[in-house]
Amino acid sequence: MAPTLEGSARALWPDFPRGPLSRYRARASFSGAELLLFLEGEDVVRFKKTIFSALEKDPLFTRSRGADLPLEKYRELSFLQCKRVLEYGFFSVEDLAASPLRVWALIHCLGMYDWSLATKCFLHLLVFGSAVYNSGSERHFKYIEKIFNTEIFGCFALTELSHGSNTKAIRTTAHYDPATQEFVIHSPDFEAAKFWVGNMGKTATHAVVFAQLYTPGGQCHGLHSFVVQIRDPKTLLPMPGVMVGDIGKKLGQNGLDNGFAMFHKVRIPREDLLNRTGDVTPEGTCLTPFKDTRQRFGASLGSLSSGRVSIIGMSVVNLKLAVSIALRFSATRCQFGPTEEEEVPVLEYQLQQWRLLPYLAAAYALDHFSRFRGRAPGSESPSAELGREIHALASAGKPLASWTAQQGIQECREACGGHGYLAINRLGDLRNDNDPNCTYEGDNNVLLQQTSSYLLGLLEHCGPDGARFRSPLQTVDFLEAHPSILGQRLTGTHQADWLDSAAPLAAYKWLVCYLLQESHQKLIRERRSQSSDFEARNNSQVYHCRSLALVFLELTVVQRFHAYTHGPGVPSSLRAVLGRLSALYALWSLSRHTALLYRGGYLSDKHSGTQMESAILDLCTQLKDDAVALVDVIAPPDFVLDSPIARADGELYKNLWNAILQERGVLERPSWWPEFSGNKPVVGSLRAKL
Amino acid sequence: MAPTLEGSARALWPDFPRGPLSRYRARASFSGAELLLFLEGEDVVRFKKTIFSALEKDPLFTRSRGADLPLEKYRELSFLQCKRVLEYGFFSVEDLAASPLRVWALIHCLGMYDWSLATKCFLHLLVFGSAVYNSGSERHFKYIEKIFNTEIFGCFALTELSHGSNTKAIRTTAHYDPATQEFVIHSPDFEAAKFWVGNMGKTATHAVVFAQLYTPGGQCHGLHSFVVQIRDPKTLLPMPGVMVGDIGKKLGQNGLDNGFAMFHKVRIPREDLLNRTGDVTPEGTCLTPFKDTRQRFGASLGSLSSGRVSIIGMSVVNLKLAVSIALRFSATRCQFGPTEEEEVPVLEYQLQQWRLLPYLAAAYALDHFSRFRGRAPGSESPSAELGREIHALASAGKPLASWTAQQGIQECREACGGHGYLAINRLGDLRNDNDPNCTYEGDNNVLLQQTSSYLLGLLEHCGPDGARFRSPLQTVDFLEAHPSILGQRLTGTHQADWLDSAAPLAAYKWLVCYLLQESHQKLIRERRSQSSDFEARNNSQVYHCRSLALVFLELTVVQRFHAYTHGPGVPSSLRAVLGRLSALYALWSLSRHTALLYRGGYLSDKHSGTQMESAILDLCTQLKDDAVALVDVIAPPDFVLDSPIARADGELYKNLWNAILQERGVLERPSWWPEFSGNKPVVGSLRAKL
Repeated sequence: MAPTLEGSARALWPDFPRGPLSRYRARASFSGAELLLFLEGEDVVRFKKTIFSALEKDPLFTRSRGADLPLEKYRELSFLQCKRVLEYGFFSVEDLAASPLRVWALIHCLGMYDWSLATKCFLHLLVFGSAVYNSGSERHFKYIEKIFNTEIFGCFALTELSHGSNTKAIRTTAHYDPATQEFVIHSPDFEAAKFWVGNMGKTATHAVVFAQLYTPGGQCHGLHSFVVQIRDPKTLLPMPGVMVGDIGKKLGQNGLDNGFAMFHKVRIPREDLLNRTGDVTPEGTCLTPFKDTRQRFGASLGSLSSGRVSIIGMSVVNLKLAVSIALRFSATRCQFGPTEEEEVPVLEYQLQQWRLLPYLAAAYALDHFSRFRGRAPGSESPSAELGREIHALASAGKPLASWTAQQGIQECREACGGHGYLAINRLGDLRNDNDPNCTYEGDNNVLLQQTSSYLLGLLEHCGPDGARFRSPLQTVDFLEAHPSILGQRLTGTHQADWLDSAAPLAAYKWLVCYLLQESHQKLIRERRSQSSDFEARNNSQVYHCRSLALVFLELTVVQRFHAYTHGPGVPSSLRAVLGRLSALYALWSLSRHTALLYRGGYLSDKHSGTQMESAILDLCTQLKDDAVALVDVIAPPDFVLDSPIARADGELYKNLWNAILQERGVLERPSWWPEFSGNKPVVGSLRAKL
Repeated sequence: MAPTLEGSARALWPDFPRGPLSRYRARASFSGAELLLFLEGEDVVRFKKTIFSALEKDPLFTRSRGADLPLEKYRELSFLQCKRVLEYGFFSVEDLAASPLRVWALIHCLGMYDWSLATKCFLHLLVFGSAVYNSGSERHFKYIEKIFNTEIFGCFALTELSHGSNTKAIRTTAHYDPATQEFVIHSPDFEAAKFWVGNMGKTATHAVVFAQLYTPGGQCHGLHSFVVQIRDPKTLLPMPGVMVGDIGKKLGQNGLDNGFAMFHKVRIPREDLLNRTGDVTPEGTCLTPFKDTRQRFGASLGSLSSGRVSIIGMSVVNLKLAVSIALRFSATRCQFGPTEEEEVPVLEYQLQQWRLLPYLAAAYALDHFSRFRGRAPGSESPSAELGREIHALASAGKPLASWTAQQGIQECREACGGHGYLAINRLGDLRNDNDPNCTYEGDNNVLLQQTSSYLLGLLEHCGPDGARFRSPLQTVDFLEAHPSILGQRLTGTHQADWLDSAAPLAAYKWLVCYLLQESHQKLIRERRSQSSDFEARNNSQVYHCRSLALVFLELTVVQRFHAYTHGPGVPSSLRAVLGRLSALYALWSLSRHTALLYRGGYLSDKHSGTQMESAILDLCTQLKDDAVALVDVIAPPDFVLDSPIARADGELYKNLWNAILQERGVLERPSWWPEFSGNKPVVGSLRAKL
């Protein structure tokens, strides 16, 4: 279908070359241009296009085929690119608060290009910047100014070698010395070295360091954050008493320098305590607006919540890139066919559709969810109630999104066969670069506990008006009716019922109620039999609280995408395809919980289960001719996607062959050829040494 | 418990240093030394020890901390190590047939050290060697001799750029020219370039090349294999008409040089046709012992079956390494605890046990399964009936083992948190090096069709005596009773019933029968409604044939491990722990199919499902104190495991800290420091260019 858009907007849609993908594009049920503008809005589409064009035109961003960059070179390149991004001035300091969508669009565009670059910029500008801004006060704004022109370079130092998840147990200390009005930052031993800190390895001059604050007399006031200078900006040499280094190669994002630091009685001015949640007077008295250490700790870690929300978006970007590669490949790779002469694109196989199309739907559904933003960078804090709800959503949203991306990338890798295993086609980098999303800002399994605790807390603590389940974003309101929802049973369905997301939505609501009840009862049983609440909670995670948190979040994603795709604002020409994506994601996610639906009695007859499966396959069939157009909407330009098997022209083999022939020394004999030709081994000559 | 073994055997068990792992070792319910010798036998244990010691003592095998080896250097190193392995003469040509277990032990030891090296040796010595031996005749034995002293270096060239799974569609041609008694090997275009061939990129001088054989007059006789010289051994320069090169970086195994080759009318002697399954007379007449091309094709690809069996073993090695790393880490990494002062090892958390211990059990169960060997390298062909059964087992065994390893490694990576994401701890390399196991020798999803076809074929083709299900290895014999098995229902179980593998075994048998029936009926329905058998089969894979194949193989693995661990030969001191491993693997695998058990009516009440879950968790609790000892049995020495967080002394942080400080330039400022200190960006200076 030709787009029915005005000229200026139409120009934002690429003019795809004719080629092997054209036949699928011609079969699409909708206009890709229309969907793109509906989802993103003209302003963002235009902004992204500006960014991508700038990168493509700039030789500093040239993709270096087969360059096999050494670590040091890759880091230099990422740093140079980071500076160049600042030179382009894609956004201003004011945009941080005023246009957060543009800021996120920039980070996502850079991430689509290379996550090392994006994370480097993100940590310096946004994480370091907002840690100073949100936890500090006016006296710290001098640092903010120096961030943008890279007078200083920042990092965020919370985790230590021996402590990650249990942040409260962090052991770096900050003793206040009233004689000099300084804090003495100290690492008691190497297990308390700051560790994993992005940008700290080679670049950062300043760090926001979390340490236990001690006042004279030896009282500990818990974890506080400080701005600590770790390197001299003039030389990049470490400051006296700071042992700072690089933790070395990681599975991915190796253009980013993760590092460690040990502090040997490093003195910093009293003013460099980030004092929004507590200050120390020149004499050494600790002032805090909070009653206890625990409360203050929660507030001072508040800035972590927005990190989790960010990771949802980053994971979605990775999923989009992976399905784009795998689906374009599948639409052009032919293998087998009804006769020996005629081969068909592997996308025509039901098995391939079932492997990939649910992840395409997931990319759309999770992308919509990721646009819910708890706090934009630099914006004001939400209310406490809203804060708790956002925290619960982010703490399960990050696991769901990062795992979906992880599994989706792996499926895409395998679905592209050997060609997916070739580094040049990028699925390996995506898998490696996405991997930390499962771990940082909190291990996924650990984070899920925060969401289940939120839900169980609502159940256990009745509000004064008797209404327990009511939240600002209304994600838990349906739970008020949990006694009646639990009585629901699904009977006499037809397969057609499952082709819309309404049916899985109802099932999901039952499922959340069921798991909430089961988890609650489990916890009560465990509390009776275990010696401590600690153990009771630990023994209620598997099959209970963990599942509860995930299923609640899946429901939230499904519900939001259902509402969005069925809303009055959706153009009629897009309703069919969006409805199918919504139904496919909902049903496919739900189908992983069929055992519980049967066990709990929501489903009872055999046919419901088979109908669900058939509906998933029907939806795949309905979507497969739209798949290439749906990819065109989410895929960046070829230069950014950077995968020869997935260029927009669909010339799979020509592009791959070209790319390989351009690698360095591809046809040359190896430099070590005399080791083969001259230096023959004498078989068994070393046997005597065994 | 102290081992109760004789002196010489006892010396094979390492003397583990005291340290943080000692408390778990002391709690083990069995003797690790005894289990090791029971599983492997003294001869193999001794042989492996010899290999590992040789590698550790030889500077060529030094682990190069932070070396960040360029591709070319890594390949040189792998080649040099391959030669050195030959110099050690760990086995002789005669061992190939006489002691296949030793040959596999060597490959696995090398793989534990580095898969690039192991695969390089494996492809040259075993794959190239056995392709020549099994498909050729006496006139080709001259090549075999030259393999061992590396006079020549071999590779196996089947797949092409545009054809992998559909090997029949391969397009390289071999035209016979009676005038010169030569074959003319030719690639019609670059899409028919041989592609992905291990060792071809830089090293190989000779290739077994698969090509369509044409005799004068233009008749095509289908795919045959030929020995083609591709490089001059004196110079490693390509032979005239051969364009041979390197396909570049892959996700893993980058010490191995995968390559491509295009042939431009390359002439080879008539004798270089590997002629076991067909020959061409000097005049150009094609002789074949087979009636049709199809039959001959099957026979000439027979050598692929043993490849699949090999991959099962390789995947198991990877799974063993990964669980070893994650469990030693989990036993020494402490995080949170009942009070703020006291932290507990993360292995004490039920959630961590549930994430890791099933994979430990899987490593043991699949390891046992992998010892079933269809054909040892160089051994005689099995009977046709046995061949079909082995083919069915290998075609689903490879997917099951490679996927279990893939998922297990990922879980281990995440279970080690950030430290698992650090390259030096090796989980990334394991994931990357294991990945091709899911793809080569046939994409997992495609291969599964061969197993389901075998089972459905048995159902559809009744034997003359009415017995349809009877096979040499008896893996399908139980299906004879499928009508009565299908009538079975599980009622009134107690949780204790699930603590032994007998209960899941019975459920698995029902499940295979159920899926066999469902798949059969689905196929009949599809055949009625679809235009071709091709489509009918394609539309019966998802939720049917694919599941059938996997579940059948899981049952086979469970059954064999159950029989082994419950056999009369098991020392009484090992019965408890082996029984638990067997039950845990069985139940955990089965629990992924609970939805089908309910849907098909095998389970009906809620309690069966919860009992299964509780039993899994109970088994985890029972096994967690044995976990470290079970790892000690399967983990190689520290030098080979090469993961600072998983050394046998358990000194997690000391080892990791040491390793990181030894990386190159860890504390140095970057070479590009003036780019930070001097060369500041002017923010927005390039905005005009946008």
